[in-house]
Amino acid sequence: MRILGLDPSLSSTGWGIVEVENNRLRYVADGFIPTDPKMPMAERLALINKTLCDVIELYKPDEAAIEQVFLNSNAVSTIKLGMARGVVMMAPAQYHIPVTEYEPNKIKKAVVGVGKAEKQQVETMVKILLPGCKPKNNDSSDALAIAITHNSFRKVR
Amino acid sequence: MRILGLDPSLSSTGWGIVEVENNRLRYVADGFIPTDPKMPMAERLALINKTLCDVIELYKPDEAAIEQVFLNSNAVSTIKLGMARGVVMMAPAQYHIPVTEYEPNKIKKAVVGVGKAEKQQVETMVKILLPGCKPKNNDSSDALAIAITHNSFRKVR
Repeated sequence: MRILGLDPSLSSTGWGIVEVENNRLRYVADGFIPTDPKMPMAERLALINKTLCDVIELYKPDEAAIEQVFLNSNAVSTIKLGMARGVVMMAPAQYHIPVTEYEPNKIKKAVVGVGKAEKQQVETMVKILLPGCKPKNNDSSDALAIAITHNSFRKVR
Repeated sequence: MRILGLDPSLSSTGWGIVEVENNRLRYVADGFIPTDPKMPMAERLALINKTLCDVIELYKPDEAAIEQVFLNSNAVSTIKLGMARGVVMMAPAQYHIPVTEYEPNKIKKAVVGVGKAEKQQVETMVKILLPGCKPKNNDSSDALAIAITHNSFRKVR
């Protein structure tokens, strides 16, 4: 069973794939999608979605998980994050793959053990939980953490 | 030359197509995309985008225009509108059709003549400017108004 973790943002959406075999986790792939701020907004959004569709077609995940949104006090930032989140979240649905949302604190707690963990702690735990994995950057490390979280909560259900 | 106007919302995105021939406007089609609030968010977003892709493939617009976002004071509403807006805005870009954004006041001023017009005034003017057109509802009427606005500003440039 493969899980796709997604950490949406307009400038650099992170993605990560983990495989669950006999209750054990294995790293499959990770990456991030940088977009040029000078590109028209519509093209940036289409690029993010298209790249994720390519990732889904290549790695064929069975389920997807996404970080629940961080509500910024700045309305313009919030709407931009919403736009990125929309095109990210719809990608699995285009392939009839279910998407589950997790709060940031829940992800940190599932991966590090505490809800207020730093980014660096998350990355360190991702590397321990997925032996041999060297996340491409913070965004893809967060995406892998989201995939790991989904695996924890699937087991609980 | 065909213009696609887009009025994004999660519950009912409006769309409208007008044709410009020898500097005259002609109504081509309009519609709205209702989504079931009980459906998972990712599926609602995918449905909105897929329907717009079908509209684009059917009517083959050359340019697209979208209302610039209304910033809600409620952050949860703002993020939801952002998500809908993201999947709407990327649809023309998937077909390499340029998308222009217009402020709500600019649209009302272009169609009705004043920036503070009511929805009903916009619909009345849409019917006058596009003879024979009976907009399906307020959302598609707004989308047609956005397409009409784009035509006005194209001429100015």
